[in-house]
Amino acid sequence: MKEKDPKIPKWKNKLHEIIYEADTPAGKFFDVALLIVILLSIVLVMLESVATYSLKYFWSFYIAEWIITIIFTIEYILRIIAIRKPRKYIFSFFGIVDLLSTIPTYIAFVFGGHNLLFAVRALRLLRVFRILKITRYIGESNKLMDALKNSKAKILVFLFAVFIICIIVGTVMHLVEGEAGGFDNIPISIYWSIVTLTTVGFGDIHPITPLGRFIASALMIMGYGIIAVPTGIVSAEYSNAFKKNIPTNTQVCPHCHETKHLNGAEFCHNCGKKLNVD
Amino acid sequence: MKEKDPKIPKWKNKLHEIIYEADTPAGKFFDVALLIVILLSIVLVMLESVATYSLKYFWSFYIAEWIITIIFTIEYILRIIAIRKPRKYIFSFFGIVDLLSTIPTYIAFVFGGHNLLFAVRALRLLRVFRILKITRYIGESNKLMDALKNSKAKILVFLFAVFIICIIVGTVMHLVEGEAGGFDNIPISIYWSIVTLTTVGFGDIHPITPLGRFIASALMIMGYGIIAVPTGIVSAEYSNAFKKNIPTNTQVCPHCHETKHLNGAEFCHNCGKKLNVD
Amino acid sequence: MKEKDPKIPKWKNKLHEIIYEADTPAGKFFDVALLIVILLSIVLVMLESVATYSLKYFWSFYIAEWIITIIFTIEYILRIIAIRKPRKYIFSFFGIVDLLSTIPTYIAFVFGGHNLLFAVRALRLLRVFRILKITRYIGESNKLMDALKNSKAKILVFLFAVFIICIIVGTVMHLVEGEAGGFDNIPISIYWSIVTLTTVGFGDIHPITPLGRFIASALMIMGYGIIAVPTGIVSAEYSNAFKKNIPTNTQVCPHCHETKHLNGAEFCHNCGKKLNVD
Amino acid sequence: MKEKDPKIPKWKNKLHEIIYEADTPAGKFFDVALLIVILLSIVLVMLESVATYSLKYFWSFYIAEWIITIIFTIEYILRIIAIRKPRKYIFSFFGIVDLLSTIPTYIAFVFGGHNLLFAVRALRLLRVFRILKITRYIGESNKLMDALKNSKAKILVFLFAVFIICIIVGTVMHLVEGEAGGFDNIPISIYWSIVTLTTVGFGDIHPITPLGRFIASALMIMGYGIIAVPTGIVSAEYSNAFKKNIPTNTQVCPHCHETKHLNGAEFCHNCGKKLNVD
Repeated sequence: MKEKDPKIPKWKNKLHEIIYEADTPAGKFFDVALLIVILLSIVLVMLESVATYSLKYFWSFYIAEWIITIIFTIEYILRIIAIRKPRKYIFSFFGIVDLLSTIPTYIAFVFGGHNLLFAVRALRLLRVFRILKITRYIGESNKLMDALKNSKAKILVFLFAVFIICIIVGTVMHLVEGEAGGFDNIPISIYWSIVTLTTVGFGDIHPITPLGRFIASALMIMGYGIIAVPTGIVSAEYSNAFKKNIPTNTQVCPHCHETKHLNGAEFCHNCGKKLNVD
Repeated sequence: MKEKDPKIPKWKNKLHEIIYEADTPAGKFFDVALLIVILLSIVLVMLESVATYSLKYFWSFYIAEWIITIIFTIEYILRIIAIRKPRKYIFSFFGIVDLLSTIPTYIAFVFGGHNLLFAVRALRLLRVFRILKITRYIGESNKLMDALKNSKAKILVFLFAVFIICIIVGTVMHLVEGEAGGFDNIPISIYWSIVTLTTVGFGDIHPITPLGRFIASALMIMGYGIIAVPTGIVSAEYSNAFKKNIPTNTQVCPHCHETKHLNGAEFCHNCGKKLNVD
Repeated sequence: MKEKDPKIPKWKNKLHEIIYEADTPAGKFFDVALLIVILLSIVLVMLESVATYSLKYFWSFYIAEWIITIIFTIEYILRIIAIRKPRKYIFSFFGIVDLLSTIPTYIAFVFGGHNLLFAVRALRLLRVFRILKITRYIGESNKLMDALKNSKAKILVFLFAVFIICIIVGTVMHLVEGEAGGFDNIPISIYWSIVTLTTVGFGDIHPITPLGRFIASALMIMGYGIIAVPTGIVSAEYSNAFKKNIPTNTQVCPHCHETKHLNGAEFCHNCGKKLNVD
Repeated sequence: MKEKDPKIPKWKNKLHEIIYEADTPAGKFFDVALLIVILLSIVLVMLESVATYSLKYFWSFYIAEWIITIIFTIEYILRIIAIRKPRKYIFSFFGIVDLLSTIPTYIAFVFGGHNLLFAVRALRLLRVFRILKITRYIGESNKLMDALKNSKAKILVFLFAVFIICIIVGTVMHLVEGEAGGFDNIPISIYWSIVTLTTVGFGDIHPITPLGRFIASALMIMGYGIIAVPTGIVSAEYSNAFKKNIPTNTQVCPHCHETKHLNGAEFCHNCGKKLNVD
């Protein structure tokens, strides 16, 4: 992307640089400005969902909604113009999200169903993930990402085992507690098991019988103990990522058989003879 | 098991390969198909426990129940036929679970007690553990297993210490709060202690007196602090499993039989004689 | 303790061995038998606190209570006889606990106040800590103990910082929420802060105003983030404890200046000359 | 600060040593005495907020309040006298906090608004942070601080990602559960998401519909799994701080200026010339 095509007009290259990249001051400014508008649009959706506000400040919300929609529309059009292969952007994940963030307001204007499209507009929230682009400015996040990638499979297996435990305990609790304690059926009992094992504990459903409480106690202590597993996995993997750049290699000095030479070493640090470096 | 007995008919060998192993495409297909049926049977048991569904879709459940029972029966018979020593399978843990997953439906058909056998049929859940066989496909899970095995004893001692703290705090809370706060007797107070220390916190029982709240605060901060212990154990053990490459090698001094020489050592560090380094 | 005084009669030495040590089969048997009696006495205290049981099985409890008291009395007397300096035992922590576990039943018998002495008898629970003696049979628990000892000071400072945060947030919440949300006064608000930050969350007190909920959200996310600190401390300290027995020492070969010799090495592993080991 | 200006009178130097430093016995005594007064003032503010106490012991509180205010006033004046550049202290964070801790009582005395200034007086709580100065007495806390500083950026990004998840799940739950389950509007639903993901779980708001409970289960298991991330970061960073003693030393080759030689290396690994090893 850095090697510009000479056939493309200069302003288009400039536009691409501003919108899609963040190396130039203008590009950074565009990114930050866009993030602020996205955050404002999210705050707007939030406040509009509060009944008292949506009645009181109906017109303020209406106008703000239109301003944001127009900004997003302009941004969407610019994005299509700036890129060489518009189709690639339009059908990408963020392309679709960007479109779905803009259309609802227009549809509501033409067909009226302001309330029905509220849900679709909430999709605008997904735009906030653009913010996470900022994380790449943080050093060593690659190591963290590697650690998380290495841990993912193991943590998923772990969470799956946790889920099986919850299914079994949930079924047992349904049989032990019955409908009196709120354990009306197995799905609800499993829901309770998850609430309990993850140490959330809402308290809307809770055991009443002594046996039920005993099983619940066992489940809670288990949950308290096994939370150590995912944590242990991530910290060990991450800790391990630090040890990748080991300073020594496996070369052996042909004269004194000394090992553990620093990477890039040409001479043996023990006898001063030349190493067999190709 | 890989070295087939020539006396056993070929089809029996083939069957054994499909049912008990997962190296061939047919064997893998059998495993996956079985897992799907098991999961379906569990979903069935769950939905049947919901009162509204069990009334509305009684016949659908009834037919689905019979289909699954027949599939499980065929599987059970095949497993007995395929193995050389059927007794070994029948009296194994999974053999018994497999039998108990099939029988209830037949008994209910003959003697009628459909509802009573619901609990026994829930045993079918245990079949889901067959799924965990998949975990062996994940690399390095041996290291994790080693770490967990090393940690087990220590975590059990830790959980036991946690339990003793809960007994003591529970007794104290029963004396401090009394029946007003819901701490009716010591077992219930211990149950509350476990709920609190593990940071679950249902809220069905909670202290009301200032002193009770003070003790509860201390218990909670303690619980927040000591959750570090099992996590620390697992992550240190797991982290340690990565460091297997100890700097010493397996050479043995030909003169004094001393072991554990540093990599690259030419002379025995014990007697000063030359080592057999090639 | 192992070097027996010849003046002490043999049976006394034998008794000391059985009661205070756990090296001989008889000593181990005594330990295990005592633990079972202690556990039974705790279960008894628990069940007696349940109103329905204490009425129904009054006489069973009464007899069991006396049997255990008599066993504890005999044990207490034997412990005094067996030891050379009885005063050292009597005024030790466990000596006092042992005495207080036995006396209440006698006092209740003489003066009648059965119910009043219930609380004192709960002290018997402390005897359960004798069980923790078993932990020393678990290998490497020294390393864990070292890690916990190293971590203690830092974790206490951490918990203290957590407590200060709770005081500040508690005060702020009292001013924000007022009495409507249950935040009647600052101590209660601090109690709520602790319940929330430690992720227990009973739900008996919870914010109602938008600002209160916003502060609560910040507190919860903070609590979720800072739980990493004690865990990080323990796992790093424990992980570090594994690296203590570094196989090499700081000796330098007087002939070839090679370092990193294994502990106990007498000859340089590089040139075969003798090391300056005193 | 250790090299005293000869022009400054001796008593002023002495005063500075006592108030601002903690090396001399007098300085340590001043620190401890001040901390006790600060803690007493905090306890006073707490107890005064309890309605029953503030009515019953009004005059005791009133007198105690004045005593503490006068002590703080004297301390404030002494701090200004003792320092060479008073402006630096007055406009520092603790200078402002110290002033705001003292003034309210005087204002309440002159203008009367005793209750209104209660909130301002709560600022006195911030003085408690002076206590954290003690932490520097704990060894190796530098390593911990380094680890926390290294982790901060990553943990903030992590908590930010958690917050985005909460916004999305909160919006979805508002649409799924609606007002029946207490999910009246998006901000409240986000509040619930945070309560749930952080495993606090008050239970004042909780899902009722099956779909809502399913999403809640997913959120809880996610929260249980991702708590591993901040913990992993801190423990890996902290564990890493222990490994500072890299096997290389600070020697520089006199011929090619190559650095980072392995401990014990006699010859430069880059040019093969002899190193200046004594």
